[in-house]
Formats: sequence, C-alpha cells, structure tokens
Amino acid sequence: MNNKAKILREALASQDIVKVVGAHDALSAIIGEQVGFDAIWASGLGISATHGVPDASILNMTEFLEAAEVMDKATRIPVIADCDTGFGEVNNVKRMIIEYERRGIAAVCIEDKLFPKRNSFLAGGQDLADMDEFATKIEVAKRTQRTEEFMVIARLESFIAGAGLEDALKRARAYTDAGADALLVHSKAKDAEEVFSFSTHWNQENRKKVPLIVVPTTYCDVETKELIRNQYRMVIYANQALRASVSSIQHVLSNILKSGTSKYIEDEVAEVKNVFNLIGTDDLNQTQQWYEGRLLAYRESGVEITR
Amino acid sequence: MNNKAKILREALASQDIVKVVGAHDALSAIIGEQVGFDAIWASGLGISATHGVPDASILNMTEFLEAAEVMDKATRIPVIADCDTGFGEVNNVKRMIIEYERRGIAAVCIEDKLFPKRNSFLAGGQDLADMDEFATKIEVAKRTQRTEEFMVIARLESFIAGAGLEDALKRARAYTDAGADALLVHSKAKDAEEVFSFSTHWNQENRKKVPLIVVPTTYCDVETKELIRNQYRMVIYANQALRASVSSIQHVLSNILKSGTSKYIEDEVAEVKNVFNLIGTDDLNQTQQWYEGRLLAYRESGVEITR
Amino acid sequence: MNNKAKILREALASQDIVKVVGAHDALSAIIGEQVGFDAIWASGLGISATHGVPDASILNMTEFLEAAEVMDKATRIPVIADCDTGFGEVNNVKRMIIEYERRGIAAVCIEDKLFPKRNSFLAGGQDLADMDEFATKIEVAKRTQRTEEFMVIARLESFIAGAGLEDALKRARAYTDAGADALLVHSKAKDAEEVFSFSTHWNQENRKKVPLIVVPTTYCDVETKELIRNQYRMVIYANQALRASVSSIQHVLSNILKSGTSKYIEDEVAEVKNVFNLIGTDDLNQTQQWYEGRLLAYRESGVEITR
Amino acid sequence: MNNKAKILREALASQDIVKVVGAHDALSAIIGEQVGFDAIWASGLGISATHGVPDASILNMTEFLEAAEVMDKATRIPVIADCDTGFGEVNNVKRMIIEYERRGIAAVCIEDKLFPKRNSFLAGGQDLADMDEFATKIEVAKRTQRTEEFMVIARLESFIAGAGLEDALKRARAYTDAGADALLVHSKAKDAEEVFSFSTHWNQENRKKVPLIVVPTTYCDVETKELIRNQYRMVIYANQALRASVSSIQHVLSNILKSGTSKYIEDEVAEVKNVFNLIGTDDLNQTQQWYEGRLLAYRESGVEITR
Repeated sequence: MNNKAKILREALASQDIVKVVGAHDALSAIIGEQVGFDAIWASGLGISATHGVPDASILNMTEFLEAAEVMDKATRIPVIADCDTGFGEVNNVKRMIIEYERRGIAAVCIEDKLFPKRNSFLAGGQDLADMDEFATKIEVAKRTQRTEEFMVIARLESFIAGAGLEDALKRARAYTDAGADALLVHSKAKDAEEVFSFSTHWNQENRKKVPLIVVPTTYCDVETKELIRNQYRMVIYANQALRASVSSIQHVLSNILKSGTSKYIEDEVAEVKNVFNLIGTDDLNQTQQWYEGRLLAYRESGVEITR
Repeated sequence: MNNKAKILREALASQDIVKVVGAHDALSAIIGEQVGFDAIWASGLGISATHGVPDASILNMTEFLEAAEVMDKATRIPVIADCDTGFGEVNNVKRMIIEYERRGIAAVCIEDKLFPKRNSFLAGGQDLADMDEFATKIEVAKRTQRTEEFMVIARLESFIAGAGLEDALKRARAYTDAGADALLVHSKAKDAEEVFSFSTHWNQENRKKVPLIVVPTTYCDVETKELIRNQYRMVIYANQALRASVSSIQHVLSNILKSGTSKYIEDEVAEVKNVFNLIGTDDLNQTQQWYEGRLLAYRESGVEITR
Repeated sequence: MNNKAKILREALASQDIVKVVGAHDALSAIIGEQVGFDAIWASGLGISATHGVPDASILNMTEFLEAAEVMDKATRIPVIADCDTGFGEVNNVKRMIIEYERRGIAAVCIEDKLFPKRNSFLAGGQDLADMDEFATKIEVAKRTQRTEEFMVIARLESFIAGAGLEDALKRARAYTDAGADALLVHSKAKDAEEVFSFSTHWNQENRKKVPLIVVPTTYCDVETKELIRNQYRMVIYANQALRASVSSIQHVLSNILKSGTSKYIEDEVAEVKNVFNLIGTDDLNQTQQWYEGRLLAYRESGVEITR
Repeated sequence: MNNKAKILREALASQDIVKVVGAHDALSAIIGEQVGFDAIWASGLGISATHGVPDASILNMTEFLEAAEVMDKATRIPVIADCDTGFGEVNNVKRMIIEYERRGIAAVCIEDKLFPKRNSFLAGGQDLADMDEFATKIEVAKRTQRTEEFMVIARLESFIAGAGLEDALKRARAYTDAGADALLVHSKAKDAEEVFSFSTHWNQENRKKVPLIVVPTTYCDVETKELIRNQYRMVIYANQALRASVSSIQHVLSNILKSGTSKYIEDEVAEVKNVFNLIGTDDLNQTQQWYEGRLLAYRESGVEITR
C-alpha cells in the first residue's frame, strides 16, 4: 500500500479543494507542510532552478526523482511529482512509474508535450504530443503501478499551445478513458476564464468526473472560493516559494555586500535556531539523549539487563 | 591545473579581503555571484537544510560533494566546500581530497571536531579532535592533492568548544606546520573580540602567515573594514541566504494560505522571468537557435557544406 | 508492509536452511535468483570492488544503498544489505534504517566493529565495538523501523578479532536482548569448528532462539547438511560470484590481448543474446509491442474508443 | 587540460592500433588495465546490465556518467564513454559534453540513431537519425568542449540499419566535416567484409583522415593484424568481459547450489586476496601506516615538530 497516495485520495474525496504548495527542496517542503498545505508539488522548474539549469528536460529522471524523494522523506504530507513529458518513450514512462512508486511518491503528473520539453511560461510555441500516443502512455502507466492508490495525473497543455478549448476537451476525454486519475488544466492566461471555460464544459459532460487541478500562476488574482465554485478540486501554488526565495536572497546578499556587514538584514532573516527547528534537530538530540541514557543505565546496572 | 583554485589564490593575494557567500544550492550560488561575491561557501548547514536533515554528519560525502559540484557548475567563481570533520579517518580524508579536486572544487575546509560532528552553533559541548591526529590528516590531505593550486583550509573550533585562545594558537601552529593553506577561526561569541584576539597574537608570531578566515554569524555587527584592520583576509557570510529564504518562504506561503490567493504576495516575489534569467534560459535558447539556423542553412544548401 | 522482508521471514520459518548468494550488481543478483538462491546478500566487499575501492568504509551509505536497491529492483527475491558498522553513530544508524526500509530492502546487517571498518579477511587486528554501545544501536534500529517485517541482523566479529567463544556468546545475548532478529556468526577459520562451537552453546541456552547465519568463505569444505545439523538457518555464499567474475575476466582479456582476436574465448563466454535475456529485454519488447498495437488499434478505429 | 584525452590522442598517433576493452564497472576496468589494454570503453550494454535493465535508453546520463567516472577513478588509462544517442536534443548533447569533460572522461561516442535507442545487436530495425541533425549536434558538441584534447567520436549505424556503404560514407563525410574526431564503423555482420569495404573507400577519399574504430563482436574471428592492414586505428572488445562474467557466475552459482558446498569451485575462482589486490587495499594500508607512524613520531617528540 502507498500510504501517501491514500492520504492524497482521501483529501480529494473529503475536502472542498486540496491546497498544494510547489517546493524546490526539503526545506521549502517542510515550511509548506508546517504552514498548513495539504500536499507538496515537486516542481520541475523549482528543482531545475536549484540545480542551476533551465526547465527544459535538462535534468533527467534520476535527478528529479532524488529531489522529490528528499521532499517526501522530510514531510508527512503526500508528494506529487512533476514529471515533465515522462522522460522519453513508453518504456521510459514505465520505468518512471516503477521508480516513483517505489520511493513513496503519491502521484506523478505528465504533460502532453514533446520531449525535450520547454517550460510552459516561456515565450515561443511548442508542439503538443500526439494525443493517441500520450493516452496510450497513460494506459501503460496505469497498468504498471503496483498499488491501487498511486495516482497518474495528465496535464493538458492545449491552452498553453494555443490549441483551444475543443482540443483540451478532446484530449481530456482520451486521457481519462486511458485511466488518468486527474487532469491538470494548464493555462498562462491573465485571468481564469480559460480554465473556467474548461471546467464548465467538462462538468456538463456525462463522463468520468476525475478531479480537475489548476495552477494559478499568471492569473494570480483568482481566489480559492472561485476555484471551488468552478469545480476545481486541487490548486497548486507551484513556484511562489521559489520566487520568494529568489527575491529575498537577492535583497539580503546585495545589502551585505553594499553595507559591508550583515547587521542591517539580521532582523529580516530567520534565526539560525529557527532553521535548526525546521530540519529535525530536536529529534536528533532526543535520539542521542535516549541513546546515552539507555547506555548509561545498562552500564551502571553491572548486569545484563533484559531490554 | 585547477582554474577555480587559481582564481581563489589570486583573489587572496590581491584583495584586501575576499568576500564569500554561503550557498545552499545552485540558485543561491548564482545570485551570490551576480551580486558580486568573490567565491561560494558550499555550506554544510545549508546543504543539510535543503535535504531536510540536521547539520550533524547525517549527510555523507557523496551528498555534500554533489551539492558543491552543482554550485560549481552553475557559477564562474570558486567554490569552497565545507567538509565537516573530513568524513571519517585518514583514508576517508584522502578519498575526499581526490573527489573534491576532481570535480573542480577550489578548496575544502575541515574542522577539528570528532565525527559525527554537531553544528557549531548548537547548544551543548562537543569534544575537539586530537590535535596531532587532525594535523596529520591535513598533512595527508596536502600530499594527496594533484594540482598545486587546490587549497586545504583548517577550521579551528577551540573557541566554540570553550578551549580558549592558547589552545587555538597551539592548534593553528600545528595545522599550518602540517600544510594548511588557510585558517578559519570560528567563534560563536556575541562580538568579534575573540577572533580579533586570535589574529592579533597570530600575526605577532614569526610564522607562516597563512590567510585568516572569519565567519561573522553571531557577531553580525562587525564591519568589513574592522575585519581588514584585524588582518582577516577572507570573510564568509555563511548562512544569510538560507535564512532569508526561510523567512520569506514562511511569510509568502502563510499569506497565500490565509488569504486564499497569491495576489497579495505577487509584488514581493521575483517574477518567473527573473528566475528563467538566473538559470541560463537565454543560453539554452541561443544554443537551440544556433542549432536550428545551422541545420536550415545546411539543408537549404542542397550540397555538402564544409563546416 | 515490506513484502520482501515478509518473504525472507517466511523462508526462515519454513525451510531447513535459507540459501543466500552474495551479489555485487544487478546482473549477479539476477543470475543468483535464476539459479535458485532464496535471497541476495548485497555484499560490502562486492560493491566496494565494483567501485574499485577497498572494503574499508571508503564508500558511504548512499553508495551502498543505491547498489542494494539496484539489486532489489532487478529481482523478486529479498535483498539483505551488508551495512558494515552502521555508518557512524546512533543517528546515522537511525537514518540507515529509514533509508533501507524505504527502498524495499528486506534486512540490514551491521557488525560490531569500529568505524571505519576493515574487511574481516584482511590481516592485522581490529578493535571490536563496545558491546553496550552496539547493543543500544540495535535497540534504536529496531525502534526506528516502520514495518513489522523488516529485519536487523547483528554480525558477531568476536572470532575474527580473536576474542573467543565466551565473548561471542556474551555479545550474542546482549544483541538479541536488544532486539536483533538474527545473528551472523563470522569466522575466518579454516574449518567450521569455531562456528559450530558457537551454535552448540547458543542452542543449549534457554534464550530467544533467533536464527543463526553462517558465511563459509575460508571453510569452504563445509556442506549444507552439516550446517543444518549444527542448527544454522541461513548460509551466505558471500563472494564466490565476484571471485568467479574476476578470474574469468582476467583469463578472457589476457587471451584476447595475447592472441590478437576474441575467437578463442568465444565459446567460453555467454552469448550476447543470453545477456539480453537476463536484463529484461523481452519484457521491454513486449511493452513496446503492446504499446504499438494499442496505438494502431486506436488510430484505425477512427473514433474515440473507450479503454 | 584533459590528461587522459591527451594520452588517448598520443596513443592514436603513435601506435599501430589502440586496443580498448569494454568494461562494466571499476573492477573489469582495473583488470583490463592490468592485462595491458590501452583504454577503457565504458560500455552502454555493460552498464545497463550491471543495473539490470535493457540497453535501450532506460538508464539516463547521470547513471551512465557515474559508472564511467567510477572506471576513470580506478584506472590510469583513458576512458571512452559510450553515450548512446546523446541523451536527447541539442541542449542535452551540450550538457553531456560539459559533464563528461568535467569528470575527466577522455572521449565520448554518440551514435546516429533515434532516442530512445535499442542495442545494435537486437533483432528488428530501427530508424537512423537525420544525418544533418546528427552532424549539427556533433558541431555543437565540439564547440562546447573546453579542453583541446577531449574527443567526440561519431558512431555510424548505417550497416546495422541495413542502409549500406554509400549511406555510411555520406554520413562519415558529414560527421567529420562537423568536427568528429574519429569514426566508429559499427556492423553486426558475420565477417569483417563490411567494415573493410568502408575503410577501403574511406581511405581512398581525399579527405580528413580521422581514425577509424571497429568493434568486432559478431565477426570475432578477425585478427588485429587484419584490422591494422585495413587501416583501423582502434579496436574495441566491447562486451567480452561482461559475457565472461555472466558465464562464470552462472557456472559457479549453479555448482554451489547443486553440490551444497563451494569447495568444488574454489579452485576456479580468484582468491579473496587477489580481489583485495585489485582494489587498492595495499595503498589503503600504506596510507594508514604512514599516518600512524607520522602520528607516533609527532607525539613522541614531545615538542612541536616542523613538518
């Protein structure tokens, strides 16, 4: 059984909307959990950025998987892994499912673009994947997974590619028929109209009602209640933590260099103690103390104690 | 030849003081370079934090090395790797030197504490390493390196351990006699008196004048000009980028969750475009365009062109 | 639930003796499974050898774990991981348990020597770990595991260190009291007398009868039926695959170089086709064909088929 | 400067023929060096096999690179890395060059097939890469490398694909015009006629005479002197070590299981001591002894000695 996947499915079944935070490392994932998000989005852009390379299929599955697993180990909430286009052809998709499921990841998300992909927010067009090929890959993915709970999310890039609503709906039908457990409707429009048009049409169809997922990056004004009203069941704040990190690091490092001291930014940055708390230092110390106490008791007893 | 090590040595030889920024991933390293720092400190605390584990020898050499290499690949300035206690006994130190030097790291820094180490800012004491053993490890390290330029930095934990100035000076003599290329004088005092007492005494001695390094975390009020006046030649702002990142992520994610939208924090976080710029997206696009142009020219020529 | 650990426990419960083969990579593990062994020993010596480094704690947990996981992914039988001394102090042991269990490893084995360890067959003495410290580490290990089935095996180095039978028995009591699930009684004697003396005494005690494990490397004349008669429940042929590989590669490569052709060794080496069969090429091709057939059917239907 | 690449170029310039051994891990690489081969072929099939997966672009660059680097660290002879089709599109090729060159690999070899590739000895056809695209990738590769010595080898799959001599020659011209430093002429014919027809025609052209490389797997009867006579300058025995290992492990493990003892195969397998010698145990012990002696001398002196 995949416990984290079970938690994710239960949240989808029981909550108005599941709130997911994009993370780029364990620390941002831990903060996301602590603040109250329901799940982690192991962001392709975020992981690429922490490696200093563009979000364009430069990193490979091993690097993305390791980053996602680090997030999973550091938190108790489920991790949804952004898996780009699936890392190649059908046998690469198959390997991907086996590896991510083994490592405890709750869900993977693949998008219907061609390998190597380009980030959806980059200027310039990019061809969509052949719909039938992509659907068949999803079918293989679902046949590959070993636990019932593991989720495969299909990400629709029709709006990003300028292919429009009809294309998105057609693809949505094919991917859900192939077994996709949820649909991420991606858009880089300035408002939510595009994604809401999709959900309106989708929910009128007499079809499998798989959960719809939305990523409000460019239409940041949208509010949760609107998303719920438009029948989105999961919202991913995919890159805000990364972008917060960039602006604050830029500010703080500039200030140190210009002023010749770190005293002026000391109040803006978290205390070292705060960092220690986030990364499990207490737990480490408790284990060390338990160990030392147990050892001492054993030694002082002079006899072989039965544990 | 190790180019980055050469750059680092030249900076030490030609500048009043070398300004080093602690990074925890490629992105913070890139920002540090862009802002104008001279070198990167691949921080043990920072790398541990991005992996979600305490800074207590929980991660191993492979994990620290990979993180340091990611920073090195993403920047043109030298990387100094925080190597804790050297990852074990003498043959582990030897392996460490071989691996870090191979990967293009300019310098490693090892501290005279026992494995597994605890972060120097944690409460509770920790025994220092035997001085002779540590010095002999440094000697082995220096005999192992293959390029002349690579640097081995010895970090003095005497002040952290409460062992005082005399102990620090005695150890400093032993480590520099053993070949250490620089000394990092660590302190968790509230002001710089402790580290300045060291530099005053050290520079009165008729000894090898290896560069002194300082890490002003707890005595953040100190200014660069004072450090220079007290004959410190390198200053490391080891964890401010990490701490900036923590506080800004906490703030932004809390706000999103509470307000049900990301619109209120949109102005505080870097634009997605800004992130793209930092991670080499332009260079990727240029390569792609060069490739496509070249390919087109070749095809249109209809003949075999000589390149 | 840890399925592989369950399989291992059931084999120990139901078989006269569990036969385990030492592997150094996925290929040797696959051959071991195909030939009929019950489980894989992810050998520290073997993994070190494939990395070209001595078996002396030079590789770290990450490297050993990755090698063990590669074996686990490639086979359906359980993998028992040789974890040296546990990779450090108590929190390193704790991390080790979490990581190995996550990756599907059925059991870990730690030995009561000091870090960094040396291979038990090397000349020259090596101090044993403090018994109480080692026992307490085992206790922490058992408290850390999340599934009931996962096994922690304690390896007794008393005979290797020349500490004798009494020391071995005393330690065996402490380790099993601490929760060890099995005991590996190591010896480098020329015959099995030493390990049989242990099992004889151990089984006369009115104690927890944890399974005993034996590794007949130096006393290779011993036969399975004798091991069973002496109440050993698991036998590990730890390094024969590695050593077979060394001698055959030496022979074949010398021959090629001397004769200037590979024709003379062609009959001695496996066919390329045989290698393909071992590494899942058929399965890959079937997936590819299934995919292509499914895709074709879908396309030819001209309509959206329901899958 | 890339020392290993320099050694490889010098061998090509000064020897009748350069003899290369395919290795699958550090141990087989070490044996290849010890037996007298000039360089190592980090075999895609071999590395896939040690990971238990088919040779069909299932492993990614990270996994192949790590395996190649392990071989490089363990030997003093150059490593030529089998890089399949280059791991994707042009920016993936660029990354590949940067990473392999950084790690000290002397040369990479890419083949003109489509990603994901299939092993050339597998039944069933596979389309060749577009010639112009492949040539332009080579051009990008050559523009990316930072040291002069690093080599990019183009592997011609025309014969494997059944495209014939003319196609091979045409592609050879394009790839060498694009900057390829050598050509690997691949063939799965039963004799060497095919590859000899290529070299005969190639050498009659008034063109850059880049070195030709041959991999006599299926035409194993061919002898070195014939290869030299036909103007091949490098021969790679790509998989014999792997295949020797498979057959010997199958034999030895079967025997142990059937006979219930390892005594009957003891004489066939290398001694444990032999394995220790191959993996640098002597060097480790010497470092340890030097360290201990130095430490003792230092302590006994009672004074601070100058090292």
